Amino acid sequence: MKFERLALIGCGLMGGSFALALRQAGLVQHITGFSASEKTRQRALELGVIDQACNSVTEAVQGADLVLLAVPVGAMHSSFAALRDTLSPKALLMDVGSTKCDVIAAAQAALGERLNCLVPAHPIAGKEVAGIEHAEGTLYQDRRTILTPLPQNSIRHIQTASEVWTAIGSHVSHMTPEAHDATFAAVSHLPHLLTFAAVNALTAQPQGAAFLEMAGPGFRDFSRIAASDASVWRDILSANRSEVLTQMAHFRAALDQFENTLKQGDTAALQQLIQQASDVRSAWTLQAGNACNKASED
Amino acid sequence: MKFERLALIGCGLMGGSFALALRQAGLVQHITGFSASEKTRQRALELGVIDQACNSVTEAVQGADLVLLAVPVGAMHSSFAALRDTLSPKALLMDVGSTKCDVIAAAQAALGERLNCLVPAHPIAGKEVAGIEHAEGTLYQDRRTILTPLPQNSIRHIQTASEVWTAIGSHVSHMTPEAHDATFAAVSHLPHLLTFAAVNALTAQPQGAAFLEMAGPGFRDFSRIAASDASVWRDILSANRSEVLTQMAHFRAALDQFENTLKQGDTAALQQLIQQASDVRSAWTLQAGNACNKASED
Repeated sequence: MKFERLALIGCGLMGGSFALALRQAGLVQHITGFSASEKTRQRALELGVIDQACNSVTEAVQGADLVLLAVPVGAMHSSFAALRDTLSPKALLMDVGSTKCDVIAAAQAALGERLNCLVPAHPIAGKEVAGIEHAEGTLYQDRRTILTPLPQNSIRHIQTASEVWTAIGSHVSHMTPEAHDATFAAVSHLPHLLTFAAVNALTAQPQGAAFLEMAGPGFRDFSRIAASDASVWRDILSANRSEVLTQMAHFRAALDQFENTLKQGDTAALQQLIQQASDVRSAWTLQAGNACNKASED
Repeated sequence: MKFERLALIGCGLMGGSFALALRQAGLVQHITGFSASEKTRQRALELGVIDQACNSVTEAVQGADLVLLAVPVGAMHSSFAALRDTLSPKALLMDVGSTKCDVIAAAQAALGERLNCLVPAHPIAGKEVAGIEHAEGTLYQDRRTILTPLPQNSIRHIQTASEVWTAIGSHVSHMTPEAHDATFAAVSHLPHLLTFAAVNALTAQPQGAAFLEMAGPGFRDFSRIAASDASVWRDILSANRSEVLTQMAHFRAALDQFENTLKQGDTAALQQLIQQASDVRSAWTLQAGNACNKASED
């Protein structure tokens, strides 16, 4: 597996790291890049992340046998529309979005006959800092990447997508888009929302700042993900709204149980609820491939 | 400041570590110990944490000029009642409970004329493992200890209490019992409850186990405190029930805001809510004295 021409649409942390990883693995001959910001694409060129900065999606995608769409979720539809007429029928197209059903819906609406080129991907990787300056070829090493193939995909395309991520050190899993979005609503999107709400609940109180001064390491770890990027998480929560609301309903039911036992002073039931959580969390360990050294946005 | 006789009531992680720290600092000549479990007090003797294992609270407290009550919150009242008639009027008595108003209420009910001996204390320290085997003299180093003095306390008693904790490396703060309980409901007790509920919400779903397999480092940090000891947290949440319920109401209001913006598809308002949380959490840092290397139960 070797690519002649990678087109990078979106030259940020995720896209830039993918390009560097592919180059370092010797998997690509030439890399074109497009970014909505001219400054960003010039910087990507200066940093050697891309070989050629292009002025349009069309120009970047021309002749590419591999296209990575690493743009905010909100820019997916217009990117699909822009590359549709230029994309080679044999090219492999992947995105790196944190939600999948909405990306696929955008592709179905905008990609036309080229829908079969898209193998949707979600690498569970990130950093607390964004931008091309922070891109590194090792970002996807020892991380999990989830592919949610489409019925339209050829076996060859799915196989190649899997090989690309594996070649840059990622552990590949396959899921349906629906299972992906339900899973990450449960283990990532809702937890983020809960910590946003917990921090806002503190700030809303006059003594909030005094409270925060006394917070210890338990709060530090609990709330780390509340420092995440607001526009990224606006998009993720909006895109996966239905699943997030479903998970919120499950959470509210569990919270109600705690509130009821507290109000009733039923300490035996309270202990049982805590024990159940404590047993599950104590037995849980981070799966190989989900681990990372740096803080993930996911 | 040097004590002739420390009586340790409760020979677990917290009490044992206090005894070791005092001994290592050369602040105490003789240490008596009582534990409800005979096995535990014998083990404390074998480990050199105490010099003398006593068969009753009365025997342990006899002649002590310093008494540390390191028993579960539920055993405070009976311990106060047991030591009341033997406690020297000059002795300094401290507890290490995570909640303060309830401990003080128990003392008011059971300590009688000796109420003035009690300087309530809450060292913000702990480990994920409990028991005398894990006691260590450095447990309180670089941690914060909060004292909530009583109007009945003499200046000398408060001063001595402060000096003891400072001598074993702790950073001492004073608060009212009410402010203490409100603060820790906000930054510790509610966050624990939220993670218990979040884990239970996952477990309640048929796909819960599959969801958990895909959870990453964000979830790992967020949910770490959900692995806490169930009986300890039953007691803390029960003892501080009113403040915890108040904080839960603040949290629900913040959660409702997120739910409403999501349901209305108001992405601008959603981004603003996230930005507010992200700004506060990004600017927050663990205060000196709250830090610890090991996981705290608080």
